Amino acid sequence: MSEKNTFTIFGGTGDLTFRKLIPALYNMEMTGSNTFDTQIVVIGRRDYTSSAYRELARDWVEKFTRLSFREEVYEKIAERILYYRMDFTKEEAYGELNAFYRENGAENHVFYFAVAPRFFPVIVQGLKKVDGARGGKVVLEKPFGENLEAAAALNEKMEAFFSPDHIYRIDHYLGKEMVRNIQTIRFANPIFSNVWDAKHIRCIQISAMEEVGVETRGSYYDHSGALKDMMQNHLFQILSIVAMEQPQSSAVEDMHREQMKVLSALVMPEDISGSMVLGQYGGYREEPSVAPDSDTETYAAVRLLVDNDRWRGMPFYIRTGKKLGEREMQVAVVFKSPSPEVESNILNIRIQPTEGVYLQFNIKRPGETDDIIQAKMDFCQSCSLEHHLNTPEAYERLIGACFRGERSWFSQWDQVGISWRYVDAVKAAYRSSGMPLASYEPGSNGPQEAERLLAIYGDTWFDN
Amino acid sequence: MSEKNTFTIFGGTGDLTFRKLIPALYNMEMTGSNTFDTQIVVIGRRDYTSSAYRELARDWVEKFTRLSFREEVYEKIAERILYYRMDFTKEEAYGELNAFYRENGAENHVFYFAVAPRFFPVIVQGLKKVDGARGGKVVLEKPFGENLEAAAALNEKMEAFFSPDHIYRIDHYLGKEMVRNIQTIRFANPIFSNVWDAKHIRCIQISAMEEVGVETRGSYYDHSGALKDMMQNHLFQILSIVAMEQPQSSAVEDMHREQMKVLSALVMPEDISGSMVLGQYGGYREEPSVAPDSDTETYAAVRLLVDNDRWRGMPFYIRTGKKLGEREMQVAVVFKSPSPEVESNILNIRIQPTEGVYLQFNIKRPGETDDIIQAKMDFCQSCSLEHHLNTPEAYERLIGACFRGERSWFSQWDQVGISWRYVDAVKAAYRSSGMPLASYEPGSNGPQEAERLLAIYGDTWFDN
Repeated sequence: MSEKNTFTIFGGTGDLTFRKLIPALYNMEMTGSNTFDTQIVVIGRRDYTSSAYRELARDWVEKFTRLSFREEVYEKIAERILYYRMDFTKEEAYGELNAFYRENGAENHVFYFAVAPRFFPVIVQGLKKVDGARGGKVVLEKPFGENLEAAAALNEKMEAFFSPDHIYRIDHYLGKEMVRNIQTIRFANPIFSNVWDAKHIRCIQISAMEEVGVETRGSYYDHSGALKDMMQNHLFQILSIVAMEQPQSSAVEDMHREQMKVLSALVMPEDISGSMVLGQYGGYREEPSVAPDSDTETYAAVRLLVDNDRWRGMPFYIRTGKKLGEREMQVAVVFKSPSPEVESNILNIRIQPTEGVYLQFNIKRPGETDDIIQAKMDFCQSCSLEHHLNTPEAYERLIGACFRGERSWFSQWDQVGISWRYVDAVKAAYRSSGMPLASYEPGSNGPQEAERLLAIYGDTWFDN
Repeated sequence: MSEKNTFTIFGGTGDLTFRKLIPALYNMEMTGSNTFDTQIVVIGRRDYTSSAYRELARDWVEKFTRLSFREEVYEKIAERILYYRMDFTKEEAYGELNAFYRENGAENHVFYFAVAPRFFPVIVQGLKKVDGARGGKVVLEKPFGENLEAAAALNEKMEAFFSPDHIYRIDHYLGKEMVRNIQTIRFANPIFSNVWDAKHIRCIQISAMEEVGVETRGSYYDHSGALKDMMQNHLFQILSIVAMEQPQSSAVEDMHREQMKVLSALVMPEDISGSMVLGQYGGYREEPSVAPDSDTETYAAVRLLVDNDRWRGMPFYIRTGKKLGEREMQVAVVFKSPSPEVESNILNIRIQPTEGVYLQFNIKRPGETDDIIQAKMDFCQSCSLEHHLNTPEAYERLIGACFRGERSWFSQWDQVGISWRYVDAVKAAYRSSGMPLASYEPGSNGPQEAERLLAIYGDTWFDN
C-alpha cells in the first residue's frame, strides 16, 4: 500500500456496481494489483447501513468474481466500503456529503459516474460543494452524450470542473486483453506488419455479435440503438487501433494522435445504400420499455473507407447487433488471394468470448490429391487453465489504470467527438434516404440486406 | 480394376518388403487406391511355398498396417501373391524366371529392387532374359550409388536397359504428406509467398533428427554415414522444394527444372570449418557390424548458400543425426526480426512424427503488462482422428504413383548426380581439412560444435 485515495461510486446500487465494480475491486485485492490504500464510498438512494450493503455485495462478489471467493480477502475490501445514502440529483445534498467525507478523512478523490449521462451535469454541479473534488479524477461510463451536440455540451461542462487529463472515459473494450494485444500482434510480428495495408489486404471486418436482446435495458437502448451503443465508441476505437500507424513511442499522446489520424481520415459515404444497413430483430417492439412503433436499430453494418496512403480504397466492414445466433467479437483481416480458386488467408483476432488468434491458410487436402483446402493455425489464449487466474477483467485493469493515472486505455474527447460526427452524419443520411429498417430473425446472422451489402463488392462476411 | 500389371519384388524376404511394401499393398486394397489388376511376384532366396509366404506376410500386415486388419481384404492381396524362389545374383536363373512369368501370364512389368545397389547391375543383366522386361518400369531403393562416380556408372547401366522415364528412384520422404504440402503452403498462401526470400527470412533450418542408432543396419550404415544416408537424398530434395521458384505448371518437368536450378546454385563452401560439422555418437564403434575404428559420421550439420536472386546471402542450415534426444523432422523458416528485443516469427513445417504447421509469433503477455512473449498458432494435421484413415503412408502413395506413371515424386538422375557432387566435395574438404569428427552423447541434441557453427553467424538451432 502506498498512497491513499477515496473511490466514490455514484450509482452504487446499480447493476454495473454489483456485477463489475465491486467484484473488480475484490479481484484486485486478490491479485495485489491495487497498490493504493483505497477507501470506497458507495452512494445510492436506497436505505442501507454500510454493514447491510457489505452483506449484499458479498453475494455479488461470490457470484461474479473470476477468482475463488475467500472470506478473509472480501473482509479486507468490505471494511473499506462506506455506504452513503443520498439523492445525487439534489444539489443541496452535497454539503452533507462534504461533511461525511471530512469525517472520514477522504482525500485524492476518484469519482465513478456509474449513472446515465443525463445525471453527469447535476453531479458535477453538486461536487462544487465538496472540498478537493475539483482536483480529483472522474471516471465516466458510456455513452458519452447522445449525439455530437449533446456530447460536446456535456464535455464542456465536465472540462469546466475537472482537468481534461483527469477525465477517464471508460470504454471497457479497451481493457480487454485481445484489444490491448492488437498493437503487439501488428507491430511485433513482421510477418503481419509487412503486409498490413491495402496492397495486401482485401478487407478488414470488425464484428461484435451479441446473443442477448435488450433484456431489462429497453428504455435506455430504445433511445440509443446499435450505432450509438456499440459502433460510435467500442468499434470505432478498435478500428482506429487496427488501422493506425505505429505510434512513435509508447506515450499515450503518440497513440492517441495516431488513432485520431485514422478517425479523421474516415470518408463520409456518398452512396448510403452501398455503405450501410440498419436492422431490427423480430419482436423488438414487444420488448419491455420499448416503444411499440420503435424505429431504433438493433443491428448496424457499415462499410468504411479510410483515406490515407495505407488504406485508400480498401473497405473496413463493421457490424454489430443483438439477438444474433452467436456471441462473438472479432477482427478478421482478409488478405488478397493470388487467384479466384484459392481462398484468402485470414488472420482472425478473437476478442470474446474466446480470446486468441488464428490464421486461416491453405493446405493440400491429405491423401492422394493436390486439392487445396482451408485449415486454421490456432492460438487460443483463453483455452489455458491459467488464463482465468492471469487475465484481469477489463474493469480491474481500467480502475487500476485510472488510479495510476495511465490514460492510454481511455477514450479522449477528440476521438469521441469525431466518432459522434461520423455516426450522426451516416444515421441522418440513412433516415433521409428513405431506406427501410431491415428486419431479421432472432438467432439469425442478421438481416439479409447486410449480406447483400458486401455482395455488391464481391465480399462476404467472415464467420468462424 | 482397369489395366493389369505384374509387380515383382527383388528382396522379397527383407525387412522393407515385410514392414512397408506388403502392408502398403494391403492398405491400397483397403482404400481402393490401387486401380490396377496387380499380380505380385515376390522373389527371395529362402524356401517358401506361396501359401507359406502368404501366412508369414499376414503377420506383418497385421502388425504394420495403419488401418484395421480385415481377413477378407488380406485374402484379396494374398491370392495375388506368388512366391518365387531364386538366387537373383545368378544370371543363369533368369531364364527359369521368364518361364515362370509366362506360365502366369505376366505383363506390364514393374520391378521393385528392394536390395542393396550393388545388386542392381546383376539383376538388370538377368532381366535381359525376361520377355517384356525392357519395356517395364523399375523402382529403385536408395541409396543410389555411394558417390558421384559410382552413381553415374550405375545410372548408365540402368538407363542402358530401362527407358529413363521408366526409372523410379524412391525417396520415401517425397511421399510424406507434409513434404508434398510444402508447395501448397508456399504458393497458395500470399502471407507466406510474399515474404519467402532472403529479404524477409533470416535463415531456413531443415532438421531430420532420429532417436534410433544404427540398430541392425551397422554394416550398411558404416559404409554410408549421415551425409549419404540422409542429406544427399532426402534433405537435398526437401531443400530444393523449399527453395525453388514456383513451377510454371504442375507438369513434372517444370517442378524438376526448378528443383535443379536450386541444386545447381548451391555454393561450394570456401571455409569448411565455418560450414560443416560431422559427428559420431558415443558408443557407435561398439555397435554390431561397425568397424572398431570407424570414422563414419552419424551426425552432419551443414550451412548452405544458394546463389540466386531470391536467396543470395541467406543461410540454409541442414542437420541430421542418429541417437538424438528426439525424433523430429521439420523445416523451420526463421523470419527477420524488427529489433533485437523481439523474437523472430518462425513458420514450422512438421514432417514427422507430428504432421502440421505452426507459426511462432509475438503477443502481449496476458495481464497488467506490455511484455512481449512468444506463442504458437498451431495446425496439427496428425492430431485429428480421421488422420490415420485418410493419410496414406509414403510407400502406398509412391507405389500407386509408379503404377500410374506419375514421376513428380521420384528423384531424377540429374538431381541425384548434382547432390552427390556437392556431398562428395564437402566430405572430401572436411577430411582434408583435418577437422576431427565431433563426438556427442546419445540422447543429446548433437555435438556442441554444431551449436558453435551457428553461433558464428549469430544464429541458433530451432528446437520445438
